[in-house]
Amino acid sequence: MKQWRLRSHPEGMPQVADWELCEAETPRLRPGTVRARALLHDVAPYMRGRISGRANYAAGVTPGQVMTGGAVARVEESDVEGIVPGDLVVSDFQFGWQEQAVLEPAVLRKVDTALGPPEAWLDVLGLNGVTAYFGLLHTAEMRAGDDVVVSAAAGSVGQLVGQIAGIAGGRAIALTSTPEKLAWCRELGFADGLAYRDTGDLAAELGRLCPHGVDVFFDNSAGALHDAVMRNLALGARITICGQVSLAGRFDEPDMGERFLRQIMIARARIQGFLAIDHAAGYDTARRRLGRWLKEGRIRSRYDIVDGFGRLPEALIGLFESDNFGKRLVRSGE
Amino acid sequence: MKQWRLRSHPEGMPQVADWELCEAETPRLRPGTVRARALLHDVAPYMRGRISGRANYAAGVTPGQVMTGGAVARVEESDVEGIVPGDLVVSDFQFGWQEQAVLEPAVLRKVDTALGPPEAWLDVLGLNGVTAYFGLLHTAEMRAGDDVVVSAAAGSVGQLVGQIAGIAGGRAIALTSTPEKLAWCRELGFADGLAYRDTGDLAAELGRLCPHGVDVFFDNSAGALHDAVMRNLALGARITICGQVSLAGRFDEPDMGERFLRQIMIARARIQGFLAIDHAAGYDTARRRLGRWLKEGRIRSRYDIVDGFGRLPEALIGLFESDNFGKRLVRSGE
Repeated sequence: MKQWRLRSHPEGMPQVADWELCEAETPRLRPGTVRARALLHDVAPYMRGRISGRANYAAGVTPGQVMTGGAVARVEESDVEGIVPGDLVVSDFQFGWQEQAVLEPAVLRKVDTALGPPEAWLDVLGLNGVTAYFGLLHTAEMRAGDDVVVSAAAGSVGQLVGQIAGIAGGRAIALTSTPEKLAWCRELGFADGLAYRDTGDLAAELGRLCPHGVDVFFDNSAGALHDAVMRNLALGARITICGQVSLAGRFDEPDMGERFLRQIMIARARIQGFLAIDHAAGYDTARRRLGRWLKEGRIRSRYDIVDGFGRLPEALIGLFESDNFGKRLVRSGE
Repeated sequence: MKQWRLRSHPEGMPQVADWELCEAETPRLRPGTVRARALLHDVAPYMRGRISGRANYAAGVTPGQVMTGGAVARVEESDVEGIVPGDLVVSDFQFGWQEQAVLEPAVLRKVDTALGPPEAWLDVLGLNGVTAYFGLLHTAEMRAGDDVVVSAAAGSVGQLVGQIAGIAGGRAIALTSTPEKLAWCRELGFADGLAYRDTGDLAAELGRLCPHGVDVFFDNSAGALHDAVMRNLALGARITICGQVSLAGRFDEPDMGERFLRQIMIARARIQGFLAIDHAAGYDTARRRLGRWLKEGRIRSRYDIVDGFGRLPEALIGLFESDNFGKRLVRSGE
């Protein structure tokens, strides 16, 4: 079977050559595990941190190791009670960029297609869903009536944040790279937004959309979008720092630019670093609610499916260039 | 009588010539007011914001107006029940830089010398006390065991923050400009600290003092001290943004430098803008506690008294150059 192994820690923007496609022996079932074959592999911005040589919040991948990543997979062999061949399972992180994996049940969940289709388990019913749910409702403590700005709004987490903000009585404002993505966000129920590649003075335009200031900012991007929001803080603004996708190309360099300490003080604003994994105890509750909204049609996702296991690195790199439109997955099996 | 009026909004670092010493008629008592003569005038870093031409959290002083500022004053005439000539009163903001003022009781408190001496009412029993108390215990939610870093630690608010942190079971770390100020902080009970003018790599030295990271940062300074702390965040760090004294000389310019969004995310840190005035409902509670600690000798203050009403502007400007040592006041009367 095939595996993608990290060849080297990237310098700046990751390149396809930072990984190596290898042949490996099919892993053998061990007691208390399942062997499964991937159908869909996840690619997600958090992976930029995992391939860096620098310390991060989770152990990184070192050169020679199989790349970290979640997948939806079909079970081929099982020594776990309640899981039989043919079942679909999902792994958030540990499946890895390989065609097959042998995994313990602690890092798997069974896919319940009554709750949502297989791809939803790497999206609204997976990490993206709990990231949007907890980052918005818990960390930012979003309240009905809030103006909620979302960066990378047509991305995997962003599209969910905007829809949850709507369900929660907020007014979602999308920041997207292109007008096409902005149109999709409007279709999802975002009240308004900006396609930043076509916008001159982002801060001024955002001020026009949010004349009373931004109450909540769900920041997936850092960079220029962050700056535009910081110049438009409402009194008591709450900012969830969820990702820095715009910095992927200069990940190991200091991020230089304007700081906003006086603006933060004057607005009594709060900036809060956020990782969904701190909320694991609440995942089941969140997933039940997200599953209900999905079923009711109140949450939809656009998927951006790339075909072929061999395209995993380029599919990931594209995220850092905003060339995905919706939740990107790589179809890899069968 | 004499008044200091603002002549012009400063560009960059304020200069004495930005104010003008004027003669004015002694103000006349109106019904329901008191007329009082200043004994001690306050000078404090927040005044930099008030003399800027830019919008801030409170209305600014415009050229031609008497400079804003608190004072302890002796009542000479009163049409307010419960206040008689000879009483001492304190005003946090509205007395202004003038020898006498006529004020309504809503902006005054009677000085109770049983709780503390007159100067304490512009310090631990005044705005500085409630700023330290609420910024540390409420906004930063300091917990026993926390390593608490304080910038401008030998300043008016800083020296109180360190002592309250000690009372609350924390380990206070002082960042001061000079070794003399650091020695004073140690005398007050700070566990350790750095005199930054003598320190090469501030971030590395701070890492040595706080090997498990900084739990709470009470930021009075912004600038290089802020940066050093941001490179040493403990998991769950809480940062109170209280002031930017180091930026006084470039107040109206963007503050450029390193941003720390990834570090904030990885540490799940929280940055919270803070103004004491949001906690006005709790001032009496805080003042009762601060007064008890003062009486018990658990809180002390060093005062830096400048003599002469005519020296108000230079006394203020000195704060922005860290040439004060303790809470600076200007003795103006009698």
